[in-house]
This record gives sequence, structure tokens and C-alpha cells, in this order.
Amino acid sequence: MPIVNLYSLSHYNFGAKETKVEKDTSVPARFARLRQIYEKEGMRISVAGVLLVQEHNYPHLLLLEIGGTFNKLPGGRLKPGENEIEGLKRKLTSKLGPRLQNLVPNWKIGECVARWWRPNFEKFMYPHCPAHIKKPKECRVLYMVHLSDSGDFEVPENLKLLAVPMFELYDNAQRYGPVISSIPEQISRFEFRMNN
Amino acid sequence: MPIVNLYSLSHYNFGAKETKVEKDTSVPARFARLRQIYEKEGMRISVAGVLLVQEHNYPHLLLLEIGGTFNKLPGGRLKPGENEIEGLKRKLTSKLGPRLQNLVPNWKIGECVARWWRPNFEKFMYPHCPAHIKKPKECRVLYMVHLSDSGDFEVPENLKLLAVPMFELYDNAQRYGPVISSIPEQISRFEFRMNN
Repeated sequence: MPIVNLYSLSHYNFGAKETKVEKDTSVPARFARLRQIYEKEGMRISVAGVLLVQEHNYPHLLLLEIGGTFNKLPGGRLKPGENEIEGLKRKLTSKLGPRLQNLVPNWKIGECVARWWRPNFEKFMYPHCPAHIKKPKECRVLYMVHLSDSGDFEVPENLKLLAVPMFELYDNAQRYGPVISSIPEQISRFEFRMNN
Repeated sequence: MPIVNLYSLSHYNFGAKETKVEKDTSVPARFARLRQIYEKEGMRISVAGVLLVQEHNYPHLLLLEIGGTFNKLPGGRLKPGENEIEGLKRKLTSKLGPRLQNLVPNWKIGECVARWWRPNFEKFMYPHCPAHIKKPKECRVLYMVHLSDSGDFEVPENLKLLAVPMFELYDNAQRYGPVISSIPEQISRFEFRMNN
């Protein structure tokens, strides 16, 4: 049984850094850019981290909130040919790392949690590639990120970092979408060790 | 990335064996028995197998159907102190194994897929133990079962063995319940190798 050590939020320092402008200002713009890049580079591979802390001895997931409504996992698109683990480290540093290089955590990327597929230039993603789809447009891979017992985070000013309890995510696709709301099931196989 | 080899249904032989009478004839009877055993033995631990085959190069899950309506994974309740892996092998043999002992597959129990908790003597199960629940009533553990490239199965006459494609299970808690309908997400981290 794989183990994840969870530490209280109070173990970490949180600061702010310069705004990271969202590349897409609307949903149609997002899919237009996906299509444009797909035509040049082929299927997009994106990676995301499952970062957990504990509060009251209960697991909470770290999520980034944009504009007070939309939540996402820290992560992003890989460069063509980039390794998933290295790419995720790069993205975590960009989204959560402090500006001072020597404070950037030594990200420990662990187990693969899930792999989602986007068959078309549309919002729908599935945890399997549909049988008739020979050319999926995006593959998104989630990895467990094992946090150490302390560390520094800096979050872009336009984003807010939230710690959301498992029971709030579970069966709540309406609020969080299928990728995030199904994380409780996917990580139920882990043993969580609570550290105070 | 863990690998699962999938073989076509036609690789296996299926037969029938004597009816296995369901221990509970109604849902209230089921929870009454759960409570009765809980008071003697404490939390129930039950195990279930995720057995996969392929049809048209697409993964299908083996499910047992009872009375034409209710589906369940092969598995069952452990004896007090019984090891999860050994108990699952025993249950798979009881539900799916041929009567001829020397034909019983050498079940290869693999990765833990999920762990569900039943906080009360009620139908609701969760992929995490709620924070305020100190004494859950049941823990159900799902394991990947790696099938070999051929073998013999015998299914009790009152049950029907079905191979259900992933897309039918996904997002279909209404038909299959949360434990089975979330298997596609939980196994998305595996690489499926299709063998013909």
C-alpha cells in the first residue's frame, strides 16, 4: 500500500508573486489555440500535480482558483518531447515555486494517479480513449506530488491557493469537473499518514 | 506505468455450476446481517476483483449479474484475520472457478485499485473515511486481477457473467453504483496491452 505523508498547512509558508496572465480569455479561444497547436505539434500532453496537506487529520487537495470561480490543479502543457516528470516539475515551479531559486522545493513526483483523454476540440474528457478515436487531441496525466514537511510557496497574484477537503470534491463534478472530482476515488488506494 | 495484458473473451471457456444462494433476500436483511456480524467481529473487510478482457481492442470489465438487474464485482467478505490477497483468491475461486480443482486459475492479484468505506449500516460508501467516523462498518478493497491468456471459468447458475465496456460504466453511477462506475477513472493509470 503506497504511503503519502500529509503535513498541516501551517508547515508551509505562502507568498505572492507577479500575475501569470491566462493565455486564453474565453473557452472558444482556448479550443481555437488547442487546435492551432495541435496542427503544428500533434496531441497536447499536459501534466498536473495532486498535492495534499492535512487539516484536522483529514486530507485536503491544493487547488488554484482563478477569478473566484474556476479551480484547477497546478500543472500545464508539456513542450514537444518533454519528459512528463521533468515537465511537471517545471510547471509546479512556475505556478507554486518561490522566485528565489534556492527556495524552490525539490519536487518529489510520485505515482501516476490518472490519465484523461480529450477526443475532440471540446470540453469533454474521458479516463479512456474512446475506441473509435484514433487521434485524441489531448492527454492529461495526474501525478501524486509528495510534499516535504515544510517549504515555501509563491502563488501568482491573480490566483488563489485553496486546500479543499476530500468530502467537498467527492461526487461534485458539477462544481469541480470530472478530472478533479474523481481524485478521491483515485487516491483511495493510498495510505495517508497524518503528521502534526 | 503499470501494464495489464488484455485477451479477447474467446480465449476463455465459460461453464455453469450450482447456484450460490444469496445470503440476504432484501436490502434491510443485508444491513441487519452486517450489523449482527459487526457486533461480533468488528468492521467487515470485503475484497473484490477487477478482471478485464478486451473486445475490439477495447477494455471490458467482468461483472456478475443477479436477477437481471443488479451487478457486482466478483469478491466477498474476508474471514476475521484473513489476508486480503488470499481472501480474494478464495472468493474468486468460489464465484468464478471451475469445480475441477486442477482447472482453477492461479489467480494473479495485482495492484490495489481503490478502497471504499461504509461509515454506517447504510448503503452509502465513500472513497475516504469521513473525519468524524471513528468506527466504520465496512472497508471494501478492489484489486486488479491479471488474467492469463487462457483459462476456464464456471459461474453459479443464478448469476450471469457480463463483459461491460469502459464507456458504459463511466459516469454511470445511476446504473452501476459509485464503486463500479468509478473504476474507469481508477484504472486510467494502467497501460492496457491488447492481445488477439
